[in-house]
Amino acid sequence: MTSVKKIVVLKGDYIGPEIMTAGLAVLDAATKDTTFAYELIDAPFGGDGIDRAGDPLPQSTIDVSKQADAVLLSAIGGPKWDNAPRRPEQGLLEIRSKLNLFANIRPTKVTAAQIDRSPLKPEYVENTDFVIVRELTSGAYFGKPRKLEAHQAIDTMYYSEEEVTRIMHQGFKMAQKRNKHVTIVDKSNVLATSKFWRKIANEVGKSYQDVTIDYYYVDAMTMAIMAKPTTFDVVIIPNLFGDILSDEAAQITGSIGQIPSMSVGESGPNLYEPIHGSAPDIAGQGIANPISMVNTVAMMLTESFDEKRIADKITAAVDYIIENHCVTPDMGGTMTTDEVTQKMVDYIKNYE
Amino acid sequence: MTSVKKIVVLKGDYIGPEIMTAGLAVLDAATKDTTFAYELIDAPFGGDGIDRAGDPLPQSTIDVSKQADAVLLSAIGGPKWDNAPRRPEQGLLEIRSKLNLFANIRPTKVTAAQIDRSPLKPEYVENTDFVIVRELTSGAYFGKPRKLEAHQAIDTMYYSEEEVTRIMHQGFKMAQKRNKHVTIVDKSNVLATSKFWRKIANEVGKSYQDVTIDYYYVDAMTMAIMAKPTTFDVVIIPNLFGDILSDEAAQITGSIGQIPSMSVGESGPNLYEPIHGSAPDIAGQGIANPISMVNTVAMMLTESFDEKRIADKITAAVDYIIENHCVTPDMGGTMTTDEVTQKMVDYIKNYE
Ligand SMILES: CC(C)[C@H](C(=O)O)[C@@H](O)C(=O)O
Ligand SMILES: CC(C)[C@H](C(=O)O)[C@@H](O)C(=O)O
Repeated sequence: MTSVKKIVVLKGDYIGPEIMTAGLAVLDAATKDTTFAYELIDAPFGGDGIDRAGDPLPQSTIDVSKQADAVLLSAIGGPKWDNAPRRPEQGLLEIRSKLNLFANIRPTKVTAAQIDRSPLKPEYVENTDFVIVRELTSGAYFGKPRKLEAHQAIDTMYYSEEEVTRIMHQGFKMAQKRNKHVTIVDKSNVLATSKFWRKIANEVGKSYQDVTIDYYYVDAMTMAIMAKPTTFDVVIIPNLFGDILSDEAAQITGSIGQIPSMSVGESGPNLYEPIHGSAPDIAGQGIANPISMVNTVAMMLTESFDEKRIADKITAAVDYIIENHCVTPDMGGTMTTDEVTQKMVDYIKNYE
Repeated sequence: MTSVKKIVVLKGDYIGPEIMTAGLAVLDAATKDTTFAYELIDAPFGGDGIDRAGDPLPQSTIDVSKQADAVLLSAIGGPKWDNAPRRPEQGLLEIRSKLNLFANIRPTKVTAAQIDRSPLKPEYVENTDFVIVRELTSGAYFGKPRKLEAHQAIDTMYYSEEEVTRIMHQGFKMAQKRNKHVTIVDKSNVLATSKFWRKIANEVGKSYQDVTIDYYYVDAMTMAIMAKPTTFDVVIIPNLFGDILSDEAAQITGSIGQIPSMSVGESGPNLYEPIHGSAPDIAGQGIANPISMVNTVAMMLTESFDEKRIADKITAAVDYIIENHCVTPDMGGTMTTDEVTQKMVDYIKNYE
């Protein structure tokens, strides 16, 4: 007997709940008549956390997440909470920290079917397939002191040996299962934390003799992501630089409305989320692209539950709607979120 | 009588001197039979500074630069000085600081003639024409403490009110002479220095009623530079983010071997330099692309000496060699640096 998996659902803000509904409908369809059993646990978070519980990350949400097998998060934030004492993003930073989710993993893939969506010429992006491993719980995001005063402001970039070592192992291990190539990104010609980052990368790399390493300064890397994205496999990058370059990487695919991500820790549940924002401008119109959330659900099934066969059904459904142009306006289609979702559900029902 | 302008020449490393020679040959040709008189003052700097004077920025170079009307710098650094106590890049950071060059200005322009060189599809980059104004003497590059210890490392991002205010005025003033649109880049949803940056931008912006402002988080901006580069005019950005995004901006043109930049202070000489590196891999082969240095010379003539007519001759020569495909291998041509330079010199001689 498989146990019932606990999935905490943080439904998000603006278009967040719209695409979460879609993702859960697809999850329901894909798991029907399988042995995979799950329970959904709704918890307040982000703007929804502020509205329902007075804080973007209520203690109850931390507690229930720690006990879960996976956390499924949709896009959060937006103008409604611009003046909240703690904004929705604060909850995001804090849940990463509280669940010790030190690595954010983002696949960047350009398939033949989708290559036309890229702003880059096809000869540049064809066959791009790399993964960004971004450090997520330290660096400039969490370093102290952080001060905003009347006439000056300060942030601190900090890395400890342990923090850098564990993210390196995470990245090198992923590379061993992929194409055995790691790219280290830093600004070690200027920053002390980057010199430190590169030094530890070099040391950790020695215990992965089957993996080749190269090093890029972050400014050179920002060019290389555009000029030769096919040359990368696993990219290990500090928190702040990772925030910037993982969005650049998403943009070269031209499909930001489709990309999932996962954040992982040493133990405890992974957190899964689409990489895009809550798109207040199109919220409530029923036209949000559900693909990112559906792909996020598939990623969760594969990575947290080892249910690759169920995930494959979902991926096939996504391929099907794209090929048949059953898509929302952002992808040049005319369908609503619900219509696209229904197409995927129908496809999965008839899948054998 | 015009006075004789003093130009300090920091000739650079690896391909640095090769393209500096080209730039100076073009300067000589373009100023012949004009009233513009200048004197070149050679000073040791970067790797060349280490070799000739034991330091990447000897005091004598600081002194002579402070007295100059302009400083012309070529690409510096390279593996030869990897283990020097102070590396060439250290000299670069320090000269910016010592000459108080707080703003780095980088044009990003995609002309019809050059559009094919871009890795982006033409419909994305056509008519791109913006300028990045990067803060250059503070932020993460200069903040203290900066510590590299055995088990941890620290950098500090710092901004004072004065530092942010002056770069804002610089950017807003440029916008008034251009398309009256400023884009402020920061990470104010996370960093204190970025909240501070945005707050001051907003305040300073009020005294430029003719200029419209928009705000981007740096991660969103990295996408926008690729997805809609034509929507920008003047982009004002902190030091570290500017390092990254100005290279991304260069890459969308596909013509990094052609782009000049200038660094300016409150008073004292501006510093002019190509944006690319010293390319140790092709040094000594006589095939370095001289266009960036030639454009840098033209920028100096316009911005420091108000010699737009002389600069126009140079720009016309650059256009001429590109149109006639008299270019180096990196641009798909077969000519040497000297041959390309000679073509430009000949063109200028016959220019009327
Ligand atoms: C919303 C924001 C705080 C967050 C970050 O900067 O990490 C986001 O950009 C991301 O990449 O997940
Ligand atoms: C060489 C390096 C220190 C420098 C910088 O980071 O500022 C360079 O990348 C630049 O942009 O001028």
